[in-house]
Amino acid sequence: HHVAEKLLSLGTITSHLSSLHLQQEDFTLCRFRYEDVKDLLQKPSTVMIFLGIEKVKNPPSSSQTVESVSEPPVWFAVNTDEDAAVLLKRCREKNCLFPRSPNRDLLKLSEEEAGIVAQARSVLAWHSRYSFCPTCGSSTRPEEGGYKRSCLNSECRSLQGVHNTCYPRVDPVVIMLVIHPDGNQCLLGRKKVFPAGMFSCLAGFVEPGETLEEAVRREVEEESGVKVGPVCYVSCQPWPMPSNLMIGCLAVAMSTDIKVDENEIEEARWFPRQQVIDSLFRGARPAFVFPPRQTIAHQLIRHWICMNSNL
Amino acid sequence: HHVAEKLLSLGTITSHLSSLHLQQEDFTLCRFRYEDVKDLLQKPSTVMIFLGIEKVKNPPSSSQTVESVSEPPVWFAVNTDEDAAVLLKRCREKNCLFPRSPNRDLLKLSEEEAGIVAQARSVLAWHSRYSFCPTCGSSTRPEEGGYKRSCLNSECRSLQGVHNTCYPRVDPVVIMLVIHPDGNQCLLGRKKVFPAGMFSCLAGFVEPGETLEEAVRREVEEESGVKVGPVCYVSCQPWPMPSNLMIGCLAVAMSTDIKVDENEIEEARWFPRQQVIDSLFRGARPAFVFPPRQTIAHQLIRHWICMNSNL
Ligand SMILES: Nc1ncnc2c1ncn2[C@@H]1O[C@H](COP(=O)(O)O)[C@@H](O)[C@H]1O
Ligand SMILES: Nc1ncnc2c1ncn2[C@@H]1O[C@H](COP(=O)(O)O)[C@@H](O)[C@H]1O
Ligand SMILES: [Mg+2]
Ligand SMILES: [Mg+2]
Ligand SMILES: [Mg+2]
Ligand SMILES: [Mg+2]
Ligand SMILES: [Mg+2]
Ligand SMILES: [Mg+2]
Ligand SMILES: [Zn+2]
Ligand SMILES: [Zn+2]
Repeated sequence: HHVAEKLLSLGTITSHLSSLHLQQEDFTLCRFRYEDVKDLLQKPSTVMIFLGIEKVKNPPSSSQTVESVSEPPVWFAVNTDEDAAVLLKRCREKNCLFPRSPNRDLLKLSEEEAGIVAQARSVLAWHSRYSFCPTCGSSTRPEEGGYKRSCLNSECRSLQGVHNTCYPRVDPVVIMLVIHPDGNQCLLGRKKVFPAGMFSCLAGFVEPGETLEEAVRREVEEESGVKVGPVCYVSCQPWPMPSNLMIGCLAVAMSTDIKVDENEIEEARWFPRQQVIDSLFRGARPAFVFPPRQTIAHQLIRHWICMNSNL
Repeated sequence: HHVAEKLLSLGTITSHLSSLHLQQEDFTLCRFRYEDVKDLLQKPSTVMIFLGIEKVKNPPSSSQTVESVSEPPVWFAVNTDEDAAVLLKRCREKNCLFPRSPNRDLLKLSEEEAGIVAQARSVLAWHSRYSFCPTCGSSTRPEEGGYKRSCLNSECRSLQGVHNTCYPRVDPVVIMLVIHPDGNQCLLGRKKVFPAGMFSCLAGFVEPGETLEEAVRREVEEESGVKVGPVCYVSCQPWPMPSNLMIGCLAVAMSTDIKVDENEIEEARWFPRQQVIDSLFRGARPAFVFPPRQTIAHQLIRHWICMNSNL
């Protein structure tokens, strides 16, 4: 089965902390052996997600006999409603973390481990919210290593042919840095829930029937009143809240007047390139606070200030 | 409300047929006036989707009095299980089409009208498959012009906070033209269901927790055994089957041996650039049949042969 080919390398925990940032605490994702969590696996409400087979760092030489080669560990993610502090005590390692708030806790993990959490969390959240068949309302049961749910009502339409009701959702979201027509300012906004002083890129869900570029133009105009022309894809990032795929773009504004949608955005402003550079590299009295380095919003802003200003 | 800002221009039906292709029949999307379908709207199973307000081609001059300005038409899509041939008779215009098979019928419409069908079909298909709450199994009801469904069980978790269970799905799919390491061949495959001789790009659903680039590498390796290095986004296309967003990429192969996944692909082959050019421009005895011009697969192949072969 295809998920068996997703070999996640769970071996090394490397820190990717940039020297531009204060040293953060380095945590390791909590791992349990089968014996330590056997009782959880017995519960009927438990869903087990196949994550992958650990990549073997030093493949055994061919001279070794088959018997002496130990099987590489297979990793699964499991849902639970046990108390996290109690569960953590079962773990044999130190500095272990259960990422609960993805916004904050995910940033404490290495990129690789954050990726594992993204995958596990998205699929487990889907199981928790999609236990009933949306087509007929019956119960469903997990299949295919946790990557499918099938309706238990044998008459259900969802069992005839292939339907997306059976598969986990991935919600595409566009997130964009809008560049002023003069090329030297960018548009950033803040929501009420942001920490004081923080500004970030605008973003929004892609709607049925539109392209990514149309979604960028629609969301920017809805949220800020600014009209956008050319749109250019830069990179993307899965964001397990619960299952978004953030698609990062640069977008060139065709108008400059700002009129925010006050339901979603508290304030939006054009920031001069020099002010952005100063805020990023000269920490002393920044004009505004950047989103964290691991976010695609941060990377988009950094991508823009690293571009030649004549582009 | 934000959908009110999606002004669809339903006025002109322009043909975008390329001179490289045989003249195709030109159909117009079937439109009804309110009076013609009033009875359908009375049915309890009918869902009405707000599509937009028609763009006014010549905005009335300010000297006109308010009373004399007629309101621009507002367009909705409506589901129905009536017989299509019978319904078509209610329509007052000629050459009208109900697109039933999106694969075939969508190609007969202008790009603009195909876009309207993509939006309407995706959202209506979602209503038909998601009438029950996936979180608790209760019935749900349409809201917000047909772009939301809310659970009727007031105790349901899906009513606390914002959940994707309430919104239409958009399923991101990567579709990619894989370029041989020598830069002069591309990898195309065929499924058993394809018309004889047709080859197209490989494609697959993005899975939770992965980036677009990772999805491209995983799907190409699963389906053809070929390993992919650099991936470059080109463009995208909504595809209402029922609600996919096809994300088109070029991908550079790092290996060349082909081993197809026979569950999905009947055959995959490297095609030399010159053979692709000949098949596209010299119709006489083509080596293979291209996917239709309106598909993103066709556009990706064309994009590649139009690129400088040194790139
Ligand atoms: N798949 C989805 N998941 C969550 N919220 C959605 C989704 N699709 C549309 N929305 C709505 O989009 C709002 C957020 O706005 P935006 O991110 O700018 O599109 C949410 O409060 C929801 O009302
Ligand atoms: N959202 C989805 N909708 C339909 N099929 C899906 C979806 N996600 C995964 N699949 C599976 O993916 C298969 C098609 O393979 P591919 O398009 O190569 O990913 C289908 O037959 C399903 O088993
Ligand atoms: Mg937003
Ligand atoms: Mg939105
Ligand atoms: Mg928005
Ligand atoms: Mg495929
Ligand atoms: Mg797949
Ligand atoms: Mg596949
Ligand atoms: Zn069902
Ligand atoms: Zn519910």
